Amino acid sequence: MATKGEKTREYILDASYELFAKKGFKQVTMKDICEITSMSRGGLYSHFSSTSQLFEALLEKITKKDEMDFQGEIEKGNSAIDILEGALVLMENEMEHPEDSLSIAMYEYAETVDANVMESFNRIGEEKWSMLIRYGIENGEFQDVDVNEIVNVILFSYQGIRMWSRIIPMKPETFRYIVNHIKKQLIGE
Amino acid sequence: MATKGEKTREYILDASYELFAKKGFKQVTMKDICEITSMSRGGLYSHFSSTSQLFEALLEKITKKDEMDFQGEIEKGNSAIDILEGALVLMENEMEHPEDSLSIAMYEYAETVDANVMESFNRIGEEKWSMLIRYGIENGEFQDVDVNEIVNVILFSYQGIRMWSRIIPMKPETFRYIVNHIKKQLIGE
Repeated sequence: MATKGEKTREYILDASYELFAKKGFKQVTMKDICEITSMSRGGLYSHFSSTSQLFEALLEKITKKDEMDFQGEIEKGNSAIDILEGALVLMENEMEHPEDSLSIAMYEYAETVDANVMESFNRIGEEKWSMLIRYGIENGEFQDVDVNEIVNVILFSYQGIRMWSRIIPMKPETFRYIVNHIKKQLIGE
Repeated sequence: MATKGEKTREYILDASYELFAKKGFKQVTMKDICEITSMSRGGLYSHFSSTSQLFEALLEKITKKDEMDFQGEIEKGNSAIDILEGALVLMENEMEHPEDSLSIAMYEYAETVDANVMESFNRIGEEKWSMLIRYGIENGEFQDVDVNEIVNVILFSYQGIRMWSRIIPMKPETFRYIVNHIKKQLIGE
């Protein structure tokens, strides 16, 4: 069970998500976080010492989030197609909510830290997807695709959509084209 | 032949490109443009009245740029495969130069204008690629793909890469995966 401290930490991360999505990284201050969480300065600082530390914890949380725990689902012996379809539904939901996209905050944050930090987040995504696709190929559910190629197409077309959906209003068809394309590549028509 | 005025206009656009790529849109002032072009305030303002007007002209120039004039090449009866390969070489070169990416400037600019402006640029890209793919399908050079699906995959995976290459150092393999994927879809293995 989560301790009180862990729960507070989660609460801070959830509350600050919206703020970073809306304002980017640079414009958010620890004072803003105090305000939306209704916490005292001392209370907040006992969990996070800076918006940088907070944002990194937030990225870590998102990257590892339970709803896309491919490793856990594979270990349970779930079908690769089911895992894929679950993930694509989540991604499609995310793409439909540009206001929740951290793209810009991530870009601004990346300018302030060593490239290694962002690379490690990118690598987590790559490894997760590679694992799922290899699993699907091995058990015969997926077609024998070039794993690296498809992983890059998945990750970057998703990122491109996330970024552009902040720039222009996107039609739901657009997300469906991308999602269908990924499905076709892995499962076939 | 281009008039002197047109040449000056082109010169201003070329010179300011680098500045927007480096600093984004918001941080560039008309004074900065005067400095890099060594033009007087009066001289510059006789061509552009604001950084907004200048940036829109720059986007227009890039979107329509001659090196990717699909319509012209189709009219000349060039092969769809040749046109595609030429375009992919250009895109791969662009992806290898994140420092030249206008992604961030475009995002910042988009926040200051009506969504219609950015939508029209997106539409030009969509129409250009759709035209080329339909041309290739009709003359039997390309496989019978879903045109909208492939166009979206091309445009957004390219945008995703352009954005992320500003965040992390990318390996040339990454671009090659995307380019190969597009080729496989259209021309086959």
